[in-house]
Amino acid sequence: MNIAIYGYGNLGRGVEAAAQKNPDMNIVGVFTRRDPSSIETRTGIPVYAADDILNYKDKIDVVVICGGSATDLPHMTPGLALNFNVIDSFDHHAMIPEHFTNVDKAARETGHIALISAGWDPGLFSISRVYAHAVLPEGETYTFWGRGVSQGHSDAIRRIPGVLDARQYTVPVESAVNAVRNGLNPVLTTREKHTRECYVAAAPDADLTAIENTIKSMPDYFADYDTTVNFISLEELRKNHAGLPHGGSVIRSGKTGLQDEHTETIEYTLTLDSNPEFTAGAILAFARGIYRMHGRGMTGCKTVFDVAPADLSILSSEELRHSML
Amino acid sequence: MNIAIYGYGNLGRGVEAAAQKNPDMNIVGVFTRRDPSSIETRTGIPVYAADDILNYKDKIDVVVICGGSATDLPHMTPGLALNFNVIDSFDHHAMIPEHFTNVDKAARETGHIALISAGWDPGLFSISRVYAHAVLPEGETYTFWGRGVSQGHSDAIRRIPGVLDARQYTVPVESAVNAVRNGLNPVLTTREKHTRECYVAAAPDADLTAIENTIKSMPDYFADYDTTVNFISLEELRKNHAGLPHGGSVIRSGKTGLQDEHTETIEYTLTLDSNPEFTAGAILAFARGIYRMHGRGMTGCKTVFDVAPADLSILSSEELRHSML
Repeated sequence: MNIAIYGYGNLGRGVEAAAQKNPDMNIVGVFTRRDPSSIETRTGIPVYAADDILNYKDKIDVVVICGGSATDLPHMTPGLALNFNVIDSFDHHAMIPEHFTNVDKAARETGHIALISAGWDPGLFSISRVYAHAVLPEGETYTFWGRGVSQGHSDAIRRIPGVLDARQYTVPVESAVNAVRNGLNPVLTTREKHTRECYVAAAPDADLTAIENTIKSMPDYFADYDTTVNFISLEELRKNHAGLPHGGSVIRSGKTGLQDEHTETIEYTLTLDSNPEFTAGAILAFARGIYRMHGRGMTGCKTVFDVAPADLSILSSEELRHSML
Repeated sequence: MNIAIYGYGNLGRGVEAAAQKNPDMNIVGVFTRRDPSSIETRTGIPVYAADDILNYKDKIDVVVICGGSATDLPHMTPGLALNFNVIDSFDHHAMIPEHFTNVDKAARETGHIALISAGWDPGLFSISRVYAHAVLPEGETYTFWGRGVSQGHSDAIRRIPGVLDARQYTVPVESAVNAVRNGLNPVLTTREKHTRECYVAAAPDADLTAIENTIKSMPDYFADYDTTVNFISLEELRKNHAGLPHGGSVIRSGKTGLQDEHTETIEYTLTLDSNPEFTAGAILAFARGIYRMHGRGMTGCKTVFDVAPADLSILSSEELRHSML
């Protein structure tokens, strides 16, 4: 299958790397809104102007859209779905129903297939929540994120005057995770589930106290959390906090038995050195899935919930039954 | 949907309990090869003779077949698939392809749908292996079982002369689990992955040394493992080892990045107080799945790999996108 990468940031580069691990996939090229001549890809795949993508319509099976959820994907995904099978990693939770409707309309009217919100959360974590809820109907599901870098929170710190660069780690509260893991089904506030660790390189003349207060009082991002702020040099930040690790756990604990006498716990945990490379691997598996589903005549917008596991695998159903069942 | 329970052992009773947690399911009755008047169900659902099941053909949407893999399911599942939609938990790995072929033929020819090998392993663990392999193509997958009671191994001990009753726990080797969890991808022999703990109540005049030697040297079951044998009283066995806990982990660790510079680890862990009740919950979710798929015209034999997560859930696709994506 022939894949186009639309957007060449961290995720686009992750898709480029992940495609190397999937022998049934070929990257047609990177499509960018920047000047194509300004970009050199890591593997030498060609770079084209985003506006020229229609010229490659016959050469592309699925466009992997690697834009941002805030401003790019809401118009990019429905727009590209008019001419291509597409997949994105839209993660603006409250907007998913509207995004789904827009993408579904574009894809359905033109006979394409689309899948939104692929990756690990939304994505693999979402799937884990659905399986766990279906097999253990009575119980509670918890999601913990981290320890890992939140790009959105890091960006929010970078926008504060006097900040040169910053990295924010989301850290699950271990005692809360253990209480959930042990089937206690605790009631947890936002503050009790995660803490936030910030590493900030500030300008020499910056007011560090003011920066720290601005971070800790930032609504939505930090105000509801126990937040620690560490000022470090730009060199140290670049040296020790260059990676994009992440991960987390979905844990569901519930009761079975006629008198609810038994406790069952399901846990799905990811530990990732590279969030974008792993996310890209998940996206490509679902790209394979929708490509196959489109081959069977399916159109419209799908989510990770609509793809049977067999369609994600490079192995045949016979091989899966033999080696993985 | 109307469910029939075919066989009323541990799993059948688990299905009876699990159905109470699924408000869209109704148990039509238990069908047994024993004398129906000898069985009292836990919730008062009626008991019928297995031979009479055809009389209830119009009242049953899916038959949950709760027989044993060794001698029951190979003929029961294809036999019942001639007249019903069916699901089983066939777990004799080497025989799955043959069983699949037989069930597929019966179901396809008569317009029914069937799903074999539902539960957690095979079942949820199998699905985890497929997802993990698809999103992380380069790596190794490990499955650890336990700590939990293996019925097959307990039965094997019970067949030794002089043994009154026995319980065998399969225990994963913690250092091996941790090595896998830490992404070391170790090469592990059978002995290095699990140990076996046996609790045995012997007859007063039994030769304990002979029983212990017989257990430890039993091929396939114990000879390849570090096995400990504890002789305890029948009272202690019944009091402290009455439950059927189980669980385990599927862990895949692999590399991403153009130079394989990053390690990603995926772990799926179950911790179960009641193996049969949890297994029953998984089976009923897949029973819902095939019932819906049959409603869309699908027939033949399926596995857990062929069912999209959305089809397992009592929630609608809209609800799933809203609350779980």
